[in-house]
Amino acid sequence: MNAAIIAVGSEMLGPKRVDTNSLKLTTALEAHGVAVVRKSVVGDLLEDLVDELRHASSRSDILLITGGLGPTEDDLTREALASAFGLRFDVDQSIIDRIEARFVARGIPMPEVNRKQGNVFRGQRTLYNERGTAPGFQLRIGAGKQVWVFPGVPFELEGMIATHLVPWLAELSGGHARYRRILKISGLTESGVEERLKPYYESHPGELVTILASPAGIEVHVIAEGSEEESRLILEQRERELRAILSERVFGVDDETLESAVGKLLLAKQATLAIAESCTGGLVASRVTDVAGSSAYFLGGAVCYTAAAKVVMAGVDAELIRAHGEVSEEVAIALADGIRQRFGSTYGIGVTGIAGPGGGSEEKPVGTVHVAVSGPAGVEHRKLHWPAPRNVVKWFSSQSALDLLRLTMIRGEPSL
Amino acid sequence: MNAAIIAVGSEMLGPKRVDTNSLKLTTALEAHGVAVVRKSVVGDLLEDLVDELRHASSRSDILLITGGLGPTEDDLTREALASAFGLRFDVDQSIIDRIEARFVARGIPMPEVNRKQGNVFRGQRTLYNERGTAPGFQLRIGAGKQVWVFPGVPFELEGMIATHLVPWLAELSGGHARYRRILKISGLTESGVEERLKPYYESHPGELVTILASPAGIEVHVIAEGSEEESRLILEQRERELRAILSERVFGVDDETLESAVGKLLLAKQATLAIAESCTGGLVASRVTDVAGSSAYFLGGAVCYTAAAKVVMAGVDAELIRAHGEVSEEVAIALADGIRQRFGSTYGIGVTGIAGPGGGSEEKPVGTVHVAVSGPAGVEHRKLHWPAPRNVVKWFSSQSALDLLRLTMIRGEPSL
Repeated sequence: MNAAIIAVGSEMLGPKRVDTNSLKLTTALEAHGVAVVRKSVVGDLLEDLVDELRHASSRSDILLITGGLGPTEDDLTREALASAFGLRFDVDQSIIDRIEARFVARGIPMPEVNRKQGNVFRGQRTLYNERGTAPGFQLRIGAGKQVWVFPGVPFELEGMIATHLVPWLAELSGGHARYRRILKISGLTESGVEERLKPYYESHPGELVTILASPAGIEVHVIAEGSEEESRLILEQRERELRAILSERVFGVDDETLESAVGKLLLAKQATLAIAESCTGGLVASRVTDVAGSSAYFLGGAVCYTAAAKVVMAGVDAELIRAHGEVSEEVAIALADGIRQRFGSTYGIGVTGIAGPGGGSEEKPVGTVHVAVSGPAGVEHRKLHWPAPRNVVKWFSSQSALDLLRLTMIRGEPSL
Repeated sequence: MNAAIIAVGSEMLGPKRVDTNSLKLTTALEAHGVAVVRKSVVGDLLEDLVDELRHASSRSDILLITGGLGPTEDDLTREALASAFGLRFDVDQSIIDRIEARFVARGIPMPEVNRKQGNVFRGQRTLYNERGTAPGFQLRIGAGKQVWVFPGVPFELEGMIATHLVPWLAELSGGHARYRRILKISGLTESGVEERLKPYYESHPGELVTILASPAGIEVHVIAEGSEEESRLILEQRERELRAILSERVFGVDDETLESAVGKLLLAKQATLAIAESCTGGLVASRVTDVAGSSAYFLGGAVCYTAAAKVVMAGVDAELIRAHGEVSEEVAIALADGIRQRFGSTYGIGVTGIAGPGGGSEEKPVGTVHVAVSGPAGVEHRKLHWPAPRNVVKWFSSQSALDLLRLTMIRGEPSL
C-alpha cells in the first residue's frame, strides 16, 4: 500500500511557509506500513487542484488531502474533488447544526457562507472535528482507491489523525506494521557515527539502519516490520547491539531531547542544577526549562553578559577575570562553582565564550567557548571552537554544556 | 510566467524532514515576478520521477528541480529527464576534470562513479557549483519551457541561485519585478488586524495586501510590481498609510524581529537592560542575545525558578512573595525593579507565571503570567492568560514582555 499527500493553500507556495502537516500524516502512515510516494502543494485555484487530484490519485492507493475545507471562496477542495472524480453533493443538515451550535456557544450567529460546509458527497464517511468547525471526510473513488480529506489547521488535523485515521490504518494493516526506533547521539559527528557503525553494517546486511544529522544531535534510525510483538523484539535487540557500540554517546531514544535526558538523570539522583551563562545568553536555562516538571530539579541561574555581572551574580573573583579574561577555562569553572554555591545546588553549569560576529581576536576567535560543570566530585571543563553564525554558536555551546553535565552524571559519580 | 518546483529525495518523504530548498527558489522567483504554482516531493524511483517531471512541466513555464544529481545509484534526476523528454547525453570531459581536481586537492582519488556527473544533455548550459562536486544545468525542452536543475545540498543551492538563477531572472523580467514589504505587528490578533484594515481594503481595491499569522507576530504583506524605483515608491506610500492605521503596533519591517526592534530602541536611547524571569526560564534573555551587538545594551539577568532565587538573585522581598504568591503583579514588578537596581540598568524586565502542565490552581490556572517593565518613568505591568502547551506559554510570555518594554520606550519617555 502506498499513499500520496496533497496540501492545499496558496500561502504554502510563497517564500515563507512549508507544509508540515504531511509529516504528521506520514508518521501515522509509516507506522502502519504505508509508504508515502509523493507529496505536493497546490494553490487555491480550481483548475490546478483538479489536475493535481487526478494525477496524485493515479499514482497511489490512498490519497490524503489537507486544507481548503473552510467556508470561504478560496476553499475549493470539495469542488475540485467533485470535478476530478465526477462526484455529487447532498446536504447534511446535522453538520450545519453542529457548526451553528459552535457559533452560538461563542455568542455569534453563524455566517451564511458556513452552510457550504454541510455539503457532503454521496457515500462519504464524515469525520467529525472536535477542535474546529470544518469536518473532514473519507470516501472511495474508482478502483478501490481511498481518499481522506482533513482541515489544514495543524491542531485540528492532529486530533483527527488520532481519532479517525489511526484506527482505520490499524485495521487495514491487520497488526502488520512498520516500527521505528531512533537512537539519539551526542558528542559524535555524522561521519564519526558512520565510522563506528561500519562493522555493524557489515555483519547485518539488509537491515534498515540509517544515520541522520540534525541540530539536536545525530540520529540512528532503526526500522522493523511485522507484528507489533515481533517488531518490538527486533528493535530491542538492535538497540542493545547499537548501544554496545555507541555506549554513553546514546543520550536517549525517539522523542527524548538532551535537556529531557539531563532532567531524567537529575531526577533519578535527586540532584539540583543552577546555571551561569554568558555567550549562550539564557539559552541553556531556557532549554532546561522547556522540559515539563523541570522545576523539580532546576533552581535558576544567571545570565552574565558583562564582567561585573559575573562578579555580582555568580560570585566570580574580579581578579580572576583580570588575570585570564572573561573567556577562559578559569572563568567558566568559577561561574559553575560560583552559581552552584549561590544556589546550594548539586550541580552548576558555567558557559563563557564569543558568539560573534564581533568580539573575536586572533588569540580568541569568534566561536571560542568554554563550558564547565561543577559537582560533588569536582569540576569538568571543555573548550570548543565553532566558527559559525551567532545562533549556531549559541546552540552548539548549549548542546555541549548539557552533554558535559550528562556525562559528568553518568561517569561513576557516587549516587547522592 | 509561472514555475513549478520538484524536490527529489526519498528522505523528504519520511516523517522528519521537509523540503526547504523550495523556499529559497521561491524567494528568487517571486522577486522577479514569477509565481510558483505547485511544489512537489518525489522519492528516488525512476518511474515516479519521470511521471512527475512530465506532469509538472505540463503545468508551468519554468520547471526547477533540486536533488538527485550525485554520483550514486540513487541519483536519478538525469536519467529521468532523459526518459521524460527524450533527451540525449554527451560526455563533458571538463566537468569530470573539475570534479577530479576537487578530489585530488583533498588527497583522494576520484571514485569511478563520479564520471556519471560528466554526462551532459545536448544543448544544456552547465551551471558550475563552486561549493560542491555536482554541477547543475539549465536546458530548454519543448514549447520554450525552461528546466533548471540544482544539487539538493542547501549551501550549494544557495550559491547557485545567486550565481546563475538570479541574473537570468533579472534579464527575463527586464527590470520588471515583484517587491514585497512585510510590516511586523505585535499586540493584535490576526482578526484584530483585519478589522482595523477593513477601511483600507475598501479604499484600495485590487491591492495585494495579505495578513499572515506567525508565532513571531502578525505580518502584513504588501506587494508591488513594476520597476524597482516605481515599486519602491508604491511600497513606501502603502507602508505610510498602513502605519497611520496600525501606528505603534508596527514594530518593524521585513526581517526585523521583536528582539531586534527592542535592541534598536535601546541603542537609540543609549539605554541598558537587565531581566529577571521565572516561567520563561531564560527565553527572554536568550531572545535578546540572539541579536548581534546586544552586548552594547544587555547587561544580564537572573532565571529565578524558586522563591529563594527571586529573593537572592533579584532582591525580591520574601514577605512580598508570602503575601501575594510567586505568581502575582507585585512579584513581577519587584523582579523588574530588583534586577534593574542590581544591574544599575536603565530598564528592568520581570516575568513570573505558570507555564504548566503542572502547578496551576483554580485561582491561578496554567498560562497565568505577569510581566512587568521598570524604567526611569516608573513601572508598567500586564497580566496574561494563555492556556496552552508549555513552550507556547513560554514563547508568548517572552513576546509580551519584549513588547511591553518596546511600548514603554516609545510612549513618550523622556529620551535619556
